[in-house]
Amino acid sequence: MQIAIVVYDRFTALDAVGPYEILSRLPGAETVFVAERTGPVRTETGMLAVVADRSLSEVPHPDVVVVPGGPGQHALMEHRPLLDWLRAVDATSTWTTSVCTGSLLLAAAGFLEGRRATSHWLALDQLAKFGAEPVEERVVFDGKYVTAAGVSAGIDMALTLTGRVAGDKHAQAVQLGVEYDPQPPYAAGSPSKAPAEVIEALRARSRFILT
Amino acid sequence: MQIAIVVYDRFTALDAVGPYEILSRLPGAETVFVAERTGPVRTETGMLAVVADRSLSEVPHPDVVVVPGGPGQHALMEHRPLLDWLRAVDATSTWTTSVCTGSLLLAAAGFLEGRRATSHWLALDQLAKFGAEPVEERVVFDGKYVTAAGVSAGIDMALTLTGRVAGDKHAQAVQLGVEYDPQPPYAAGSPSKAPAEVIEALRARSRFILT
Repeated sequence: MQIAIVVYDRFTALDAVGPYEILSRLPGAETVFVAERTGPVRTETGMLAVVADRSLSEVPHPDVVVVPGGPGQHALMEHRPLLDWLRAVDATSTWTTSVCTGSLLLAAAGFLEGRRATSHWLALDQLAKFGAEPVEERVVFDGKYVTAAGVSAGIDMALTLTGRVAGDKHAQAVQLGVEYDPQPPYAAGSPSKAPAEVIEALRARSRFILT
Repeated sequence: MQIAIVVYDRFTALDAVGPYEILSRLPGAETVFVAERTGPVRTETGMLAVVADRSLSEVPHPDVVVVPGGPGQHALMEHRPLLDWLRAVDATSTWTTSVCTGSLLLAAAGFLEGRRATSHWLALDQLAKFGAEPVEERVVFDGKYVTAAGVSAGIDMALTLTGRVAGDKHAQAVQLGVEYDPQPPYAAGSPSKAPAEVIEALRARSRFILT
């Protein structure tokens, strides 16, 4: 089983590395970081680079595709090489997945029309522009398409997918291995829980990022 | 404020990238990935490399130090360049922190003697060898030393630390920004919750990794 994690300029690191840490523990899995060109790719802050070991053309038939989000994805939504690659690999993938605003790339590629899907809470409405049905859930399965909410939701998505692929016992072992027994210090991780002023502050700032 | 995240051959990716994703959002923070030598550093699976932009000697006075864990840390516990650097930067750091078995490196550097500390549940006992008091908690503060449990606990550690450094409102905004409202698919993330057979399977395998 080959898992392709797509990276691009200004992707969000945890969107990619959360699923990597979980899915790379699937039995017999080969995980590859893929970009338009091989070499270092900078995340959204500019303060971290990960290495793309393979170019898109070197990974023609991954079994699982993971598309992270990040402010850089807007530049890609009309980027033909990436969209063409996504459409080509989706023809043979078993699972096509996204984290955060990565779902907008799946939508731009045409995969989510008429499908239930999620995204970062600040970007959820934009899915409807592509004919998807935005769903306020943390992990959404619709056929072979799996979308996760913002950033950290990729961990939940990958563990859920691990259970489907390799069974509950294996997924539980992975969860225990990474000691995923989360204890967030605040009840502030979703707009249904966070203080109103915190939500508004983020919403105001996001106008410049997500439109 | 400068945050130094130490990476080394066979570190665990999420141990480092979880705290990076949170701490890099501190106001005015510069986050640097540091290793003995600059360049790509491979994680424990060999399937991902992150770039160390700075060598140890280029980062003499970080305000916050983050030491991730991973199977590679055992090779480092008597590694003089790293231990010397840790001791030198600890003399001026505001916070010295670890995730997972990274706490064994803090312990080997002599920081945790007589202090409460945690680690990956499979490595917790080993802290006592260095005179630390092992504590089964997800995030442990003792003075300026902050240790987190296994892998994913670095996210909780970094959010808690963000609250101490920049206040609750900022930390809540970061938590909402990364949509950290975890919904693990199983109740299996700690040895107090996971099925006995899953715990035993990991314990059996870990004999080869963590001793």
